[in-house]
Amino acid sequence: MIFLFTDFGFRDIYVGQVKAVLQSRAPREAVIDLLHDAPPFNVRAGAYLLAALTAQQPKDSVTLAVVDPGVGGDRAPVAVLADGRWFVGPDNGLISVIAARAKKSETYSIGWRPKALSASFHGRDLFAPVAALLARGNRRQARLKRAALAVNFGSDDLAEVIYVDHFGNVVTGLRAAAVPRSREVAAGGRGIPGARVFSEVRPGAVFWYENSLGLVEIAAHSASAAQALGLKVGDAVGIASGK
Amino acid sequence: MIFLFTDFGFRDIYVGQVKAVLQSRAPREAVIDLLHDAPPFNVRAGAYLLAALTAQQPKDSVTLAVVDPGVGGDRAPVAVLADGRWFVGPDNGLISVIAARAKKSETYSIGWRPKALSASFHGRDLFAPVAALLARGNRRQARLKRAALAVNFGSDDLAEVIYVDHFGNVVTGLRAAAVPRSREVAAGGRGIPGARVFSEVRPGAVFWYENSLGLVEIAAHSASAAQALGLKVGDAVGIASGK
Amino acid sequence: MIFLFTDFGFRDIYVGQVKAVLQSRAPREAVIDLLHDAPPFNVRAGAYLLAALTAQQPKDSVTLAVVDPGVGGDRAPVAVLADGRWFVGPDNGLISVIAARAKKSETYSIGWRPKALSASFHGRDLFAPVAALLARGNRRQARLKRAALAVNFGSDDLAEVIYVDHFGNVVTGLRAAAVPRSREVAAGGRGIPGARVFSEVRPGAVFWYENSLGLVEIAAHSASAAQALGLKVGDAVGIASGK
Repeated sequence: MIFLFTDFGFRDIYVGQVKAVLQSRAPREAVIDLLHDAPPFNVRAGAYLLAALTAQQPKDSVTLAVVDPGVGGDRAPVAVLADGRWFVGPDNGLISVIAARAKKSETYSIGWRPKALSASFHGRDLFAPVAALLARGNRRQARLKRAALAVNFGSDDLAEVIYVDHFGNVVTGLRAAAVPRSREVAAGGRGIPGARVFSEVRPGAVFWYENSLGLVEIAAHSASAAQALGLKVGDAVGIASGK
Repeated sequence: MIFLFTDFGFRDIYVGQVKAVLQSRAPREAVIDLLHDAPPFNVRAGAYLLAALTAQQPKDSVTLAVVDPGVGGDRAPVAVLADGRWFVGPDNGLISVIAARAKKSETYSIGWRPKALSASFHGRDLFAPVAALLARGNRRQARLKRAALAVNFGSDDLAEVIYVDHFGNVVTGLRAAAVPRSREVAAGGRGIPGARVFSEVRPGAVFWYENSLGLVEIAAHSASAAQALGLKVGDAVGIASGK
Repeated sequence: MIFLFTDFGFRDIYVGQVKAVLQSRAPREAVIDLLHDAPPFNVRAGAYLLAALTAQQPKDSVTLAVVDPGVGGDRAPVAVLADGRWFVGPDNGLISVIAARAKKSETYSIGWRPKALSASFHGRDLFAPVAALLARGNRRQARLKRAALAVNFGSDDLAEVIYVDHFGNVVTGLRAAAVPRSREVAAGGRGIPGARVFSEVRPGAVFWYENSLGLVEIAAHSASAAQALGLKVGDAVGIASGK
């Protein structure tokens, strides 16, 4: 199974080209779009979102992860084997949170190169063919070599907004397990009370809850929390001190 | 074949997680996205749109239908077998129009529950696994039991806008078979004449026609009818009385 | 392999219906979405974008191409075999640039018709079934007959904006091979210098480069060139004369 996580934009011309490569090179692998509207150019938000989204990937899966504002520059391609799941992408920090949080992780440089490499679309020309090789168990042909990550954000949480969905729900980089539900979350200049679920609060009310990825999420019942609070990706969030 | 009809948003992080579950549990089933941008939180519009979109589903198909503002509350999951096609989703009215319009339909409560059920994403945790079971003919493991629907909108038409597409075409909940083309449709404060097809009217002109789902649709040739008339989901439409 | 190129909108209700038809009629063929947000109603921009996007299609693939403002009118359906790849769509110019640029191309009228043909959705009712037939090698059942194209834009470049992606990158109909990188591109009332790649310029700076499809593209490092220059599909671009 090959998972795709990118900022290529679902509606755009890029995802189809990546899939055509995967279909030619690994025709029996199911390809699943995890996200193509990761915050554009935002490697840090993407790294924490990717880590949360792929915490339960099946063993032997390969995740192609590309948020790559430095494409065509000197950042290297990298492959990480984290608890038995492959992650392939640019060595710019994007895969580093997964690597840091895994019980066991190995990092590899990628020696394989295509005959023709465009300056701007390594997702299609380099990362997709390597993902296809790894999905087929062909690690050798990918020419992997043990190496350290060049950029590493570490395993800690990120006290920022990392994603806003189309309902206006505001996803943060804070894992909810460490936050008691009685605490308020501070964002957009106010304190936001916790709840278990949407149907627990009255329509329009803003609250935070543990979302289905295990993250602190700020939401509003049948309304847009992002709009109500004026929040966007990158804005700071905090945990109010206990009373 | 498994069809998906949701308000999860195509561009968001939700559809991929549902597909990962379906791929693990029913790897041989084709999965087809019917719509992921159903009007958010709007169960009524969704119910009529779903009924029109799935009137021709192939026998033995399973449609996973989720527009579920009450997720995590006390609304129950439900499965409907309508003329030999399965529909799985929340018992909030969403599947009721299909059930009411079918020649033969049976309604079932769902006894199966996952080991871990998130508060906010039953589409992934409950409905997708049940859809996979039904697609594989495993009705028993889904623990179905005959029951009545808790919410039922009935089989009649809905005289409202139920969907606006990206061209700006305005889809209504009225089936066109019952509306003579000589009648005007009333919407946005004016009467709109009928036509057979876009190319029959001059560019920019607003008209109504029987769309490819058999519904009354208000459109404009090479322009946005929604913008021209200021129409949005939920707005009332009517049929002018005959002259 | 069947590729889809349309202006149906990824988020809308149309693509799923096309895929349901393909799945029923050619269940073993992989279906790949190249683009569903081609500029709406814009056959000319679509023709040049399609030609660039499909220059490398695999042999024996079938591309279903539908941008069809005249649907339901008297434009005919057409199939083109261009260097061993099939293209199916309306005979309104959309497939003509591919046909004109191919080393060897044959054009066919399509005699096959469905039992029920909607007035507005030939993509589902006519083009998809024919694409399925051709993908399965069933040219005879499609009832093809050699014919000339009714509308032909020819093989030359188009000095216009043909696509703006979600990053704000501005794709033109000019093939970059013919444009020396030292030349400026004129667009939005200014001259734009060339560069090899995003990471070569400072953040925010506007430049043009050869994109991954081989076209002249106007971009800005980590910013929207479309916004910076006020450019949209259809706007003229030019090549500054050499010094």
